[in-house]
Amino acid sequence: MIRLPRLWTPLILVNFKAYIESVGGKALELAKKAEKISNQTGVCIGLAPQYTDINQIAEAVSLPVFSQHLDPIMPGSHTGQVLAEALETAGAIGTLINHSEKRMRLARIDAAIQRAREVNLVTVVCTNNENVSASAAYLKPTYIAIEPPELIGTGIPVSQAKPDIVTETVKLVKKINTEVIVLCGAGITKGDDVVSALKLGTQGILVASGVVKAKEPSKILLEFAEATLSV
Amino acid sequence: MIRLPRLWTPLILVNFKAYIESVGGKALELAKKAEKISNQTGVCIGLAPQYTDINQIAEAVSLPVFSQHLDPIMPGSHTGQVLAEALETAGAIGTLINHSEKRMRLARIDAAIQRAREVNLVTVVCTNNENVSASAAYLKPTYIAIEPPELIGTGIPVSQAKPDIVTETVKLVKKINTEVIVLCGAGITKGDDVVSALKLGTQGILVASGVVKAKEPSKILLEFAEATLSV
Amino acid sequence: MIRLPRLWTPLILVNFKAYIESVGGKALELAKKAEKISNQTGVCIGLAPQYTDINQIAEAVSLPVFSQHLDPIMPGSHTGQVLAEALETAGAIGTLINHSEKRMRLARIDAAIQRAREVNLVTVVCTNNENVSASAAYLKPTYIAIEPPELIGTGIPVSQAKPDIVTETVKLVKKINTEVIVLCGAGITKGDDVVSALKLGTQGILVASGVVKAKEPSKILLEFAEATLSV
Amino acid sequence: MIRLPRLWTPLILVNFKAYIESVGGKALELAKKAEKISNQTGVCIGLAPQYTDINQIAEAVSLPVFSQHLDPIMPGSHTGQVLAEALETAGAIGTLINHSEKRMRLARIDAAIQRAREVNLVTVVCTNNENVSASAAYLKPTYIAIEPPELIGTGIPVSQAKPDIVTETVKLVKKINTEVIVLCGAGITKGDDVVSALKLGTQGILVASGVVKAKEPSKILLEFAEATLSV
Repeated sequence: MIRLPRLWTPLILVNFKAYIESVGGKALELAKKAEKISNQTGVCIGLAPQYTDINQIAEAVSLPVFSQHLDPIMPGSHTGQVLAEALETAGAIGTLINHSEKRMRLARIDAAIQRAREVNLVTVVCTNNENVSASAAYLKPTYIAIEPPELIGTGIPVSQAKPDIVTETVKLVKKINTEVIVLCGAGITKGDDVVSALKLGTQGILVASGVVKAKEPSKILLEFAEATLSV
Repeated sequence: MIRLPRLWTPLILVNFKAYIESVGGKALELAKKAEKISNQTGVCIGLAPQYTDINQIAEAVSLPVFSQHLDPIMPGSHTGQVLAEALETAGAIGTLINHSEKRMRLARIDAAIQRAREVNLVTVVCTNNENVSASAAYLKPTYIAIEPPELIGTGIPVSQAKPDIVTETVKLVKKINTEVIVLCGAGITKGDDVVSALKLGTQGILVASGVVKAKEPSKILLEFAEATLSV
Repeated sequence: MIRLPRLWTPLILVNFKAYIESVGGKALELAKKAEKISNQTGVCIGLAPQYTDINQIAEAVSLPVFSQHLDPIMPGSHTGQVLAEALETAGAIGTLINHSEKRMRLARIDAAIQRAREVNLVTVVCTNNENVSASAAYLKPTYIAIEPPELIGTGIPVSQAKPDIVTETVKLVKKINTEVIVLCGAGITKGDDVVSALKLGTQGILVASGVVKAKEPSKILLEFAEATLSV
Repeated sequence: MIRLPRLWTPLILVNFKAYIESVGGKALELAKKAEKISNQTGVCIGLAPQYTDINQIAEAVSLPVFSQHLDPIMPGSHTGQVLAEALETAGAIGTLINHSEKRMRLARIDAAIQRAREVNLVTVVCTNNENVSASAAYLKPTYIAIEPPELIGTGIPVSQAKPDIVTETVKLVKKINTEVIVLCGAGITKGDDVVSALKLGTQGILVASGVVKAKEPSKILLEFAEATLSV
């Protein structure tokens, strides 16, 4: 389990999603590969496995573990909801919020960020365009991950298909709150995509299938890590 | 971890909800107390902890572990969703579906039951009245737990406040499918409540605060277990 | 406005959806064309326009008007919800429930059917397969419309692509409640599709783009009406 | 029907909700009373009736009519959704968005505001606290209505119970976009409540039960209108 200072940049954040390649024992294997690349390069790699795998990964590897979602509930009579305290106890140090595959209501995003803060979880709020990014910045998340949903899983990186969305997001977010860190997601599969994302002003990437479904996840993680060091 | 025959009756199923008294290390403690009572009395006690605690409890105790919810998704590009394969890998042997605090759309209940079946998870579909129970019985779950939402957490047992809902549910469900097992939930806090639930034709109970928030959970679990043996 | 006996068979029910071809003045035009065909052939045609067009159509034509949805709320402090009393006052005689584009939670389907009954609205519950149809039949709707979502808008009629789903739905529904009327939807564009739907045991069809987006809606409605008379 | 310049201040916006006192013929009566007070005092009164009553009210009275909700859909294959073009055609000039009884996901609020703009509907985005207000301001709605949900229907006005939320909302919103108009809702029942709302920097109120459920709606509307003139 890791209890490091709370902010890491650049950050390569790997969303394990509900892929069969990243559940249970396979999740653990992938986490260990990521840890090896992180140790080798010194680049921070975050891992967002399925809820049921958080504790085993947090125990086994020294990388920051994120939940894929957090419900803005207080401890109490709620069933099937994801409680902030449960994530913290399981060893997560942060959580995705409002991923395009788990969109949340505005007031609940606000409440989820507050709940995360109460138990010292960092927050990565996913957004779909520059206005929504600015809107989210006002709620004071740790990170904002700009990720146009139409590019997710396409292999077409936002940094190349829609660079304006990224630069405008960085500009608006930094104007509102200089402390919020901008990540860039959707369609990232090559080291070059990472380079262009960082050159547009972001401080890391959010990636899923590009790593999890790669033939050799270690190789692509190494490529990503080296790319961040080259900028 | 347990891999027993799939049906247990009578069943005392404890929903850990998002109570602070049943998360992380406290979840494990409660699970061990339940295991002790189960061993002592021979009565089956099921445990439905938070997602993040499923694997540690399934590993540590020999009782059937349930998830509190299952999303009817196939493995793939889904974030923050609960995948059947993830539950199975973590050691769960079943899942609640459509709890009153996590209601699902009808077509998704049907799909979730099918997904559970594909990975050999038993299903406990929660319902709110006799018609909805009959409706759910057609989808072939393993268990139906009739639980009028207005009684949850009240300490007023459905078996006393609304016995007709229970007997009518048992009658309708058995007419549709004799294999579906009916449980009874909401407001159960005493051994007598368990006795009356079983006398109405159910084959077990679904309980939450009555155990989790009890001063002495072991004592109340023992009372429940002995009550089931007295009928 | 129409206040006819509550059940019509065979029924051709036209869902206006949110098509630009069936909103406002164009909705009224389409309704009048449908009325003309209905008068000419004696076949009942139901109309399900957008909420905002219900009252003008109910006033202008003598055909049964349906809402596309109903929220299971009591009159009171609810915003942006569709109240049963509002539909009844506007002149609707029934409502779709649980359309594949507006799926509802199981307990809410039950409650919506009850609320509809309280103000004498007939209910058309949409379902996606035979088990869900049987499940819905237990809630005592007036109609069940079986409509595999993967065929909606394809032009491939369910009666030809998946005839077994239709016959099995009719069998199960009638076994549960002989009074429930089964309609068949999805992919219907030709008179032949109507014929085969009726031959499989349904008592009418639910259609949308096949009529609304037809070059000549009157012509296709006539074809449908004549097809129902030929069986 | 009214086609006035798009901004009115101060604005008294009456949400008819799903009250039985403001549906069908009674909605029309209430609208006419409001029109009379508006003509008498020169104060703009907006009306947000149920969907099914929009067209009859827009036709009968010369006051701006709002929808209670808008779905961010394009015309097409959607059932039971509220289409921007349908509202515009029915005579609405604007819409509430994200009311506390109809909360929306962040990306959908953004999309709904854009869809409203495309058909020249003004937008009133409801928010629950100062941060969410600032967040919403970035999406460029016409109005923001700050309305702490815990005060709705209580008769305790936000302007007195939580004046800081109101002043902070006005400050933040105006800093982000001077053109966005701030309204104040929740718990308003007396002229004094209106006065204090305006003194805190808002330019109008959002009210529901305070008017709809009043014994004499005309009297309370007159009291509100005169209060706005006194500031």
